[in-house]
Amino acid sequence: MNDIYIRKLLKQVKNGNVSVDDAYEQLKEMPFKDMGFASIDNHRALRTGFPEVVFCQGKTPGQIGCIMSELVKNGGNIMGTRADREDFDEVIKIIPKARYFETARIIAVMDEDGRDSELDSFKTVSVVTAGTADIPVAEEAAVTAEILGNRVDRIYDVGVAGIHRLFAKLDIIKKADVVIVVAGMEGALASVVGGLVDAPVIAVPTSIGYGSNLGGLAALLSMLNSCANGVGVVNIDNGFGAAYLASVINRKR
Amino acid sequence: MNDIYIRKLLKQVKNGNVSVDDAYEQLKEMPFKDMGFASIDNHRALRTGFPEVVFCQGKTPGQIGCIMSELVKNGGNIMGTRADREDFDEVIKIIPKARYFETARIIAVMDEDGRDSELDSFKTVSVVTAGTADIPVAEEAAVTAEILGNRVDRIYDVGVAGIHRLFAKLDIIKKADVVIVVAGMEGALASVVGGLVDAPVIAVPTSIGYGSNLGGLAALLSMLNSCANGVGVVNIDNGFGAAYLASVINRKR
Amino acid sequence: MNDIYIRKLLKQVKNGNVSVDDAYEQLKEMPFKDMGFASIDNHRALRTGFPEVVFCQGKTPGQIGCIMSELVKNGGNIMGTRADREDFDEVIKIIPKARYFETARIIAVMDEDGRDSELDSFKTVSVVTAGTADIPVAEEAAVTAEILGNRVDRIYDVGVAGIHRLFAKLDIIKKADVVIVVAGMEGALASVVGGLVDAPVIAVPTSIGYGSNLGGLAALLSMLNSCANGVGVVNIDNGFGAAYLASVINRKR
Amino acid sequence: MNDIYIRKLLKQVKNGNVSVDDAYEQLKEMPFKDMGFASIDNHRALRTGFPEVVFCQGKTPGQIGCIMSELVKNGGNIMGTRADREDFDEVIKIIPKARYFETARIIAVMDEDGRDSELDSFKTVSVVTAGTADIPVAEEAAVTAEILGNRVDRIYDVGVAGIHRLFAKLDIIKKADVVIVVAGMEGALASVVGGLVDAPVIAVPTSIGYGSNLGGLAALLSMLNSCANGVGVVNIDNGFGAAYLASVINRKR
Amino acid sequence: MNDIYIRKLLKQVKNGNVSVDDAYEQLKEMPFKDMGFASIDNHRALRTGFPEVVFCQGKTPGQIGCIMSELVKNGGNIMGTRADREDFDEVIKIIPKARYFETARIIAVMDEDGRDSELDSFKTVSVVTAGTADIPVAEEAAVTAEILGNRVDRIYDVGVAGIHRLFAKLDIIKKADVVIVVAGMEGALASVVGGLVDAPVIAVPTSIGYGSNLGGLAALLSMLNSCANGVGVVNIDNGFGAAYLASVINRKR
Amino acid sequence: MNDIYIRKLLKQVKNGNVSVDDAYEQLKEMPFKDMGFASIDNHRALRTGFPEVVFCQGKTPGQIGCIMSELVKNGGNIMGTRADREDFDEVIKIIPKARYFETARIIAVMDEDGRDSELDSFKTVSVVTAGTADIPVAEEAAVTAEILGNRVDRIYDVGVAGIHRLFAKLDIIKKADVVIVVAGMEGALASVVGGLVDAPVIAVPTSIGYGSNLGGLAALLSMLNSCANGVGVVNIDNGFGAAYLASVINRKR
Amino acid sequence: MNDIYIRKLLKQVKNGNVSVDDAYEQLKEMPFKDMGFASIDNHRALRTGFPEVVFCQGKTPGQIGCIMSELVKNGGNIMGTRADREDFDEVIKIIPKARYFETARIIAVMDEDGRDSELDSFKTVSVVTAGTADIPVAEEAAVTAEILGNRVDRIYDVGVAGIHRLFAKLDIIKKADVVIVVAGMEGALASVVGGLVDAPVIAVPTSIGYGSNLGGLAALLSMLNSCANGVGVVNIDNGFGAAYLASVINRKR
Amino acid sequence: MNDIYIRKLLKQVKNGNVSVDDAYEQLKEMPFKDMGFASIDNHRALRTGFPEVVFCQGKTPGQIGCIMSELVKNGGNIMGTRADREDFDEVIKIIPKARYFETARIIAVMDEDGRDSELDSFKTVSVVTAGTADIPVAEEAAVTAEILGNRVDRIYDVGVAGIHRLFAKLDIIKKADVVIVVAGMEGALASVVGGLVDAPVIAVPTSIGYGSNLGGLAALLSMLNSCANGVGVVNIDNGFGAAYLASVINRKR
Repeated sequence: MNDIYIRKLLKQVKNGNVSVDDAYEQLKEMPFKDMGFASIDNHRALRTGFPEVVFCQGKTPGQIGCIMSELVKNGGNIMGTRADREDFDEVIKIIPKARYFETARIIAVMDEDGRDSELDSFKTVSVVTAGTADIPVAEEAAVTAEILGNRVDRIYDVGVAGIHRLFAKLDIIKKADVVIVVAGMEGALASVVGGLVDAPVIAVPTSIGYGSNLGGLAALLSMLNSCANGVGVVNIDNGFGAAYLASVINRKR
Repeated sequence: MNDIYIRKLLKQVKNGNVSVDDAYEQLKEMPFKDMGFASIDNHRALRTGFPEVVFCQGKTPGQIGCIMSELVKNGGNIMGTRADREDFDEVIKIIPKARYFETARIIAVMDEDGRDSELDSFKTVSVVTAGTADIPVAEEAAVTAEILGNRVDRIYDVGVAGIHRLFAKLDIIKKADVVIVVAGMEGALASVVGGLVDAPVIAVPTSIGYGSNLGGLAALLSMLNSCANGVGVVNIDNGFGAAYLASVINRKR
Repeated sequence: MNDIYIRKLLKQVKNGNVSVDDAYEQLKEMPFKDMGFASIDNHRALRTGFPEVVFCQGKTPGQIGCIMSELVKNGGNIMGTRADREDFDEVIKIIPKARYFETARIIAVMDEDGRDSELDSFKTVSVVTAGTADIPVAEEAAVTAEILGNRVDRIYDVGVAGIHRLFAKLDIIKKADVVIVVAGMEGALASVVGGLVDAPVIAVPTSIGYGSNLGGLAALLSMLNSCANGVGVVNIDNGFGAAYLASVINRKR
Repeated sequence: MNDIYIRKLLKQVKNGNVSVDDAYEQLKEMPFKDMGFASIDNHRALRTGFPEVVFCQGKTPGQIGCIMSELVKNGGNIMGTRADREDFDEVIKIIPKARYFETARIIAVMDEDGRDSELDSFKTVSVVTAGTADIPVAEEAAVTAEILGNRVDRIYDVGVAGIHRLFAKLDIIKKADVVIVVAGMEGALASVVGGLVDAPVIAVPTSIGYGSNLGGLAALLSMLNSCANGVGVVNIDNGFGAAYLASVINRKR
Repeated sequence: MNDIYIRKLLKQVKNGNVSVDDAYEQLKEMPFKDMGFASIDNHRALRTGFPEVVFCQGKTPGQIGCIMSELVKNGGNIMGTRADREDFDEVIKIIPKARYFETARIIAVMDEDGRDSELDSFKTVSVVTAGTADIPVAEEAAVTAEILGNRVDRIYDVGVAGIHRLFAKLDIIKKADVVIVVAGMEGALASVVGGLVDAPVIAVPTSIGYGSNLGGLAALLSMLNSCANGVGVVNIDNGFGAAYLASVINRKR
Repeated sequence: MNDIYIRKLLKQVKNGNVSVDDAYEQLKEMPFKDMGFASIDNHRALRTGFPEVVFCQGKTPGQIGCIMSELVKNGGNIMGTRADREDFDEVIKIIPKARYFETARIIAVMDEDGRDSELDSFKTVSVVTAGTADIPVAEEAAVTAEILGNRVDRIYDVGVAGIHRLFAKLDIIKKADVVIVVAGMEGALASVVGGLVDAPVIAVPTSIGYGSNLGGLAALLSMLNSCANGVGVVNIDNGFGAAYLASVINRKR
Repeated sequence: MNDIYIRKLLKQVKNGNVSVDDAYEQLKEMPFKDMGFASIDNHRALRTGFPEVVFCQGKTPGQIGCIMSELVKNGGNIMGTRADREDFDEVIKIIPKARYFETARIIAVMDEDGRDSELDSFKTVSVVTAGTADIPVAEEAAVTAEILGNRVDRIYDVGVAGIHRLFAKLDIIKKADVVIVVAGMEGALASVVGGLVDAPVIAVPTSIGYGSNLGGLAALLSMLNSCANGVGVVNIDNGFGAAYLASVINRKR
Repeated sequence: MNDIYIRKLLKQVKNGNVSVDDAYEQLKEMPFKDMGFASIDNHRALRTGFPEVVFCQGKTPGQIGCIMSELVKNGGNIMGTRADREDFDEVIKIIPKARYFETARIIAVMDEDGRDSELDSFKTVSVVTAGTADIPVAEEAAVTAEILGNRVDRIYDVGVAGIHRLFAKLDIIKKADVVIVVAGMEGALASVVGGLVDAPVIAVPTSIGYGSNLGGLAALLSMLNSCANGVGVVNIDNGFGAAYLASVINRKR
C-alpha cells in the first residue's frame, strides 16, 4: 500500500534510518502504479462499478473465451460487444451462466437476475430508431443500457418519412431521462427528437444506407450539424458508446 | 431553311443539275448548325419561352451591362442571378426598366407587370426554409419562380428544431404543386416535408452552418439520403436551379 | 376505419352515451396513426395510392416473406426493391400472385394485369442510360415507374462517347413527360439530355466505374454541378427513388 | 385555449348545436398550432426555461438589434452567440442592460444579478482546454453554461503534450457534474480526460491547427473515435452547443 | 455500307425511281448510325480504325460471348478488357481465333499476325512501372498499345526508391514516341520520368498500396500535381485508357 | 565539355600522365552535373528549346523582375505564368521588350515577332471552353501554346447545355492536331468532345462553379472518369500544363 | 526550486519540525508541476534543454510580447514560430537581444553567439527543398535546427523535374546525420532522396500548389506512401516540427 | 566487382590494350547498376547492410518462393512482410532455414542465431500499443526491428483510456533510443507518449476502429496534428516502415 509506504519512508527519515538524499531518490523514482493516488490508479469502468467490457470484433472465439474466463475469476460482471454466435458458443463452454443477446451481438456474464441490481439507477433510457434496419445498433444500445442498470423503452421504426409514428410514441419518449436516437440514411430523426424532448439526446448514426451515405458519414454529419440544441453524437454504429454515456449521465444523478 | 435546302438539293439531283457525287458531298459536309433539326438548334431556355439567364458572379458590372444590353435588343425577357447592387447600378443606366431584387440578388428585365403574363402557369410553388439564414437562397428560388410564371408562397423559418412551426403552415404547403425546401445545417427539413406532402419536393442544401457542415456538404448528403421518397436535390445554394426545375414541372402540366 | 370511429364517437357524445370529458380524453390520447387527420395520418405512399414499398436489402428472405404476407392482408399492392431471387422464392410460397423482375430486383404483388390500372397516369417516363452496365439501376427505375402507373420508354446505352446514338433516339426522349437519366462514370449524359429536352430531368448517378469514380461520387458531383438547368438528382444507384419522384410529378398533373 | 375549444365543440355536439359532420370537419382541419398538445406546441428552449438564443453570425448589427428588442418585449432572458462588438454596440443602444462577453462573443440580456437565479442548478461544469488558442470556444461554453445556471470551473491550457498540467488540476475536474473538453489539433485531451473522470464528457473539437488539421476535422474524428467511453461530441467550435447539452444534463437531475 | 446506300438513294432520285419527298423523308429519318456524316456517324474507335472494345467487367461470360460474336460478324477487330479467363473460355468456344493475354486480362480477336498490320504506326510506346505489383495494369497498357499498332518497350520495376534502375534503362525510354508511366503508392516515378524525357508522358496511377493510399488516390493526386511539365493523367488502373491515348497521339503523327 | 574531359583523362592515363588510381577517383567523384550524360544534364524545358518558365504566383514583383532579368542575360526566351499586372509593371522596367497577356496572366519575353519562329511546329491546337468563365484558364493555355510555337484556334462558350453551339464549331475542332478542353462545373464537355474528335484530347478542369463543385474537384473527377477514350487530364486550372503537353505532342511529330 | 523544496521538507521531517502526517499531506497534495518527478514534471522541451517555444500564429503582438517577457525572466532561451514582423517589433521593445529571422518567421532570444553553444550537437541536418516556394518552410526548419544546436546545410530548389540538380548536391546531402526534405506539389522528392541516402529522412509536405493539391494534402499523401523506406512525415508546412524531430534524433546520439 | 572492373579498364588504357575511344564508350554506356558510383549504385537496403525485403501482399506463394530462392543465392539475409502462412509453406520447401513470425506475418531468412549479429546496434526500440488489436502491426514493427539488429521492448495495451497503464511502464519506455507508438481509433497515445519521452517517437496509425475511423485516417490525422513535438508519422498499419526508420536512426549513431 502506497499510503503506508510513503508514511513508513517519512518515519524512517524522521528516525534517521533513511537519509534525506536517499528518501528524495525513492520519492522521485517511485513508479506511478505504486503511488496509489486515486486520480490515476484505475480506468473508468472499474471505478464506476460498470462491468468490464470486451470488444470481440477482430478476436477469435478462442481468444474471447480465454479473456472472459480470466475476467470472470476476478468476480466482476463482464460483457462482450460485437460478438458472433460462434464467439458465444466458445464462451458458454467455459462460463455456463453466460447469456447471448443475438440482435445486440452482446455476451453478458451477470448476476442471476440478468442484470446487476446494485447497478440499478431506476432511471430510464428511450432508445428510438428511424427504421427497422437500425435495430441491431439500437439493441446494442438497449441491452447495454439494461446491463448498466437503466430501465429501457424501445421505440423502433418511427423515422421522419412518416412522422405521425413518432408523435404516437412521443409521450413515452418525453418521459425518458436520456434519449438515444439511432438513425442511418440522413439521420434527421435526431434533430426532430432533439426539438421535442427536454432530456439529453445522444445521437447514434448508423451505416444503414447506400451510395452517398458513405458508410454512415451522411448521418454522422447530419447529427453533428443538428439545428436542435442539446444533442451529443457518438461514432457510427456505436450503440454501446451511446448507452455507456447515457448510463454515466443517469448514474451521476 | 434546311428543309427547303435539302429538298432543293434533291430536286437538283433529280433534274440532273447536281451530280450524285456533289450532292453526296454536300449532305456529308453540311454543318449541324445549318441542318435545322429541331432537337438541337437551340438551348432549353429559349425553347421553353423562359427568359435568358445571365450568371453574374465572376463578371464585372461592365460585362454584365454589356451582355444584358445585347440580349435586350433581341426583345426577350432577361434575368441575372448572383448580381450585386453594383451590377444593377450599371445595368439600370442602360436598361431603365430593369428591376433589382436585393435579397435574391436577381436583376430582372421583364414586361411591365413585373412578370411575363404569357409565362403564367397559374401553378403554385411553396418555398420553405429551415432558418432565417437560408432566406437569401430561398428568395433566389422564390423570385425566379415568380419570374418564370409561378405563384409563390414563402414559408420561412420552420425548421425541425421547433417542428410545430412547420405544422402550423402545413395546410399552405400541402396545396402547392411543387415544394422547394431550402435548408442548411443538417438539412433534415427536406425529409420531414417529403414525408408530409404529396407534391414533388425539390431540396436545396445551403452553405449555412460551420465546422463539419463543410460548406453545405452535410445538408447535401442528408438530402440525397432522405428517407422520404419523391425528393430531388440540386446543388448547394442553387435556389435558381430549384425554381427552374419547379417551373419545368409546372409548365409541363 | 378512423373516419367511422370519430363519427361514431361524436354520435355517442350527441346521444349522451359518452360524456364530453371522456370524448375529449379519447380524442387527445388517440394515437396519431388512428386519428386520420389527413396531414399526418399515414405516410406518403399510402396517401398517394402508391403501393407499399419494402426495402429488402439487409433483410432475410424469411423476414421479407413475413412482412409482405402481413401487408397483403391489408389488400393493397406491394412492391419489394433490392430483392434477390432467394427473397422471391420465399415470397412466392406465401403469395402466389407475386412476380419477380430479375434485372430490376423487384418483387411486385399487384392486380392481375400486372399493374394497377387505377394508378395509370397515362403519362410517360423515358429511362435513358449511358451504358449497358447502368441497366440494372435503370430497370429498377423503369419497373417502378410502370408499377406506379406510368408508361415507360427504355433508351439504353446512348452515352456521350458516341453521341449520335443519343440523337438517334432524341425524338422519343423529347416526348416524355419526365426523363430519368441513369449514368455512371462521369455522368455527363445528364447535362447533355438536360440541354436537349423540355421535360423535368431526374438524374441517377450509378456506381459503375472504378478508381477515382469513388463508388459513384464522380457521377453524383457531376450531376449536381450540371451546367444544364432543370435537373434534379437522387442518390447513387437509386433507380426506385427517381421513378418515385417521376411518378409524383406525373400524378399531380 | 385548445383544451377549452375542443370541450366546447364537444358540448355543442352534445347539445345538438353542432352536427356530427361539422364537428368532424373541424377536428380534422384544426391546425396543429391550435391544438395545444403539449408535445409539439413549443420548442425546447422555451419549454426548459432557458433564454431565447440568437445566432448572430451572418446577421447585420441592425437585424440583431431588431430581433433582440422584439424578444425583450416578451420579458424573457436572451442571449446572442457569435456576436461581434459592433453587434453589441447596436444592441446596447436599444437594451441598456445588455452585457457583452468579449472573448466568448456572447451578448446577454439577463436579470440584474447577471444570470437568472431561477435557472440555477447548483451543478458544476468544468470547461477544460488543451491550449490557449482554444479559449474563445471554451469561453463560449463557459459563459453559456453560467447563463444557463451552472457553476463553471475553467481549466485552460492543460493539453497532453505536458500531461502533468492536467494531473495538477484533476481534483477540480473530477468534482464536476459534467466535463466539457475543448481541444483542437489532434484532440487527444478528450480521450485522456474521458479515461480519468466519472462524469459525462462532452467533447468540442476546435478549428485550431493547420495543414492536415482540415479546419478541425482531425480533432473531430479523433473525438468520435475516442477509446474512452462516455464521451459525446458536438460540432467543431460549438462551445454553445456543448454548454447547452451540459445544462440539459444538469437540469434534469 | 452507308456511303453506298446514300449514293444509291441519290441515284434513284436522279433516275426518278424515288421521289424527292420520299428521299427527303429517308434522309431525315435515317438513324444517325446509318447516316455516315463524318462528324457523328460513329464513335471514335470506329473512325480511327481501332478495334471495337468491350469492357468485360460486370458482364457475364455469356453476355461477353454474345456481344463479341455479334461484333465479329461485322468483320472488324475486337478486344475485350478486364476479362477473366472464364470470360475467355466462353469466347473461345464461339470465336476460335480469339487470344487471351492473362496478365493484361485482355481478349483479342485480330488478324492472323496477332495485330492489325494496317494499324501499325511504326511508333514506339515505352511502358514503365515503379514496381512489380503495377505490372497487370502495365500489361493492359502494353498489350492494348500493341493491338493498336504500336511497338512497345516494357521497362518494369524501376521505381524511385532505387533510382539507378531507372537510369540504367533511360536510353530506351528516351527513344520512345510516348511514355506511359504506371505507378502506385506515391506515384513519384511520373514526375521523375517527366523531367527526363522529351516525349509526352501519360501517367497511370495504380491502386497498389494500402492505408492512406486510399485505393490509388494518393498516386493520382501526386501525378496531377507533378512538378514536371508535359504529363497527362488517366484514371486509376486505367492501363487501357493510357494506351489508347498514346495510340491516338502516335496515330496522328 | 564533358565528352572532351573524359577523353582527355583517358589520354592522360594512356600517356601515363595520370595514374590509374587518380583517374578512378576522378571518375568516381565526378559530380553528375559535370558528367554531361545527355540523359540527365538538363531539365526538359531547356532540352526542348522551349522558353524558360517562371511560376509567378507567390513571388513578389521585385523577385520576378530579378529572376527574369537574370534569365534574359542567358539570351533565351522567357515566359512568366500567373503574373499580375503589378508583376508586369516591374518586369517592363527592366526588360522593355516584355509583353503582357492580361487575361492569360502571362508575361512573355520573346523574339520580335511575338513568338519564336524557330519553335513553330505548324501544328494546331484547338482550345475549347464550356463557358465564358473558363476563358482565363483557356487563355493561359492558348497563349502558352502560341508561345511554344503552335497555331491556336479558340472555340469558347460551347458547353453541353446548348450542344448545338459545339456542333457548329465541330469542323474547326476536328482539324486540330491536339484539342484542349477547358471546363468547370461538371466538365461534361471533355467527354463529348472526346467522343467526336480523332485527335488527342487534353482536359483541363477549372475551379468555376460553387457548392459541391469543391473548387474544381467535380470537374476533375468527371474528366478522369470520362467514358470517351483518348482523354488525358491535367490539374485544376492548369492551362499552362495542358498547352505544354500539347506542344510536346506536336513537337515530337 | 522543487528539488530544494522536497529536500527541505524531508529535512524538516528529520528534524521533527514537520510531522510525518503533515509531510505526507504536503507530498500527496503537491501539484504535479511542483513535484519535480522527472517523468512528468515538465514538458519535453524543458527536459531536453531546448528553448521554450511560442506558437505566435493567432496571438496578437501584445500577447506575444507579454508571454516572451515572462519567459525571459526565467532565464532560458526562447523561440517564437510563425511570427510576423509586427510581432517582432513588439518583442524587440521589451527584449532588446531578440533577433528576427524574416523568411523563417522566427523570433529568437538566445545567448550572445546566436545559438546556445551548450546545445551544440556537432551533428548536421541537411534541409532540402523541391522548389523556391518551399523555402519559407525550409527556413523555419533550418533556423530551428540551428537554434537547437545542429549544423545545417541548405540545399534548395533541387526538385525531381530536373533531377540532375539533386545529384549535383548529393555528396553534401549524403553526409548529413538527418535529412529534412521539404516539398509541395506532388512531394516526389522525399521518395527520391529516401532512396539515395542512409540517414533518417523527415519529410515535410508544403501547401505549395493549387487545384487538386488540396492545400498540401497531395504532397502529404505522397510522402506517407513513399516507396522508399526510412521516411517519417510531419504535418503540412511544419518546418519547426521536422527540425525538432531531427534535433531529438541528433541529441540522443 | 565494379571497382576492379573500372581499374582494369583504366589499366588496359594505360597499357594500350584498349583505345581511348573504346574506353570512353564503355564508361558512357556502362549501365548504372554496374558503375558502382556509391551514390546511386544500389538501393538503401543493400547499402546499409539491412536484409533484402519482399513485400508479399498481392503475390502468390509461388512467386514469393521464386523471388526468395533467387535472393538467397546472393547470400544475403532476406525478409518477407505481409506474408501469410501459405506463403511460408511454399518458402520453407525451398529454403529450409526460413522462419515464420505468425502475428507479424514476416518470413525471415537469417543467420543461425535468428538475427544477424553483425547488424546488432545494441540500441533499443520500445514498441508501444494502445490496444490489443494493434498487436499485429506492432509485431511487424518489433520483429522487423529485431531482424535489423535492435533490442526491442514490447509494451502493449497501454492506451489513454486507462492512462495509469502507460505510467506503470514509463520507465522502460523512457530508456528506449527510439519509441514506436502503434495506435488505432483516435491515436491519442502518440501525443501522450511524445510529451513524456525524450527519444524520437515514430507514430504508426492502425486501421483498428470502425465508422468515422475511416480505415485508420482518424488516427493518422490525429498523429500528424500531434500537439507534442518530435513525432514523425508513417503510413497506416506500416509497422515495417516504422521499424525501418527506427533502425536507420539507431544505426547511424
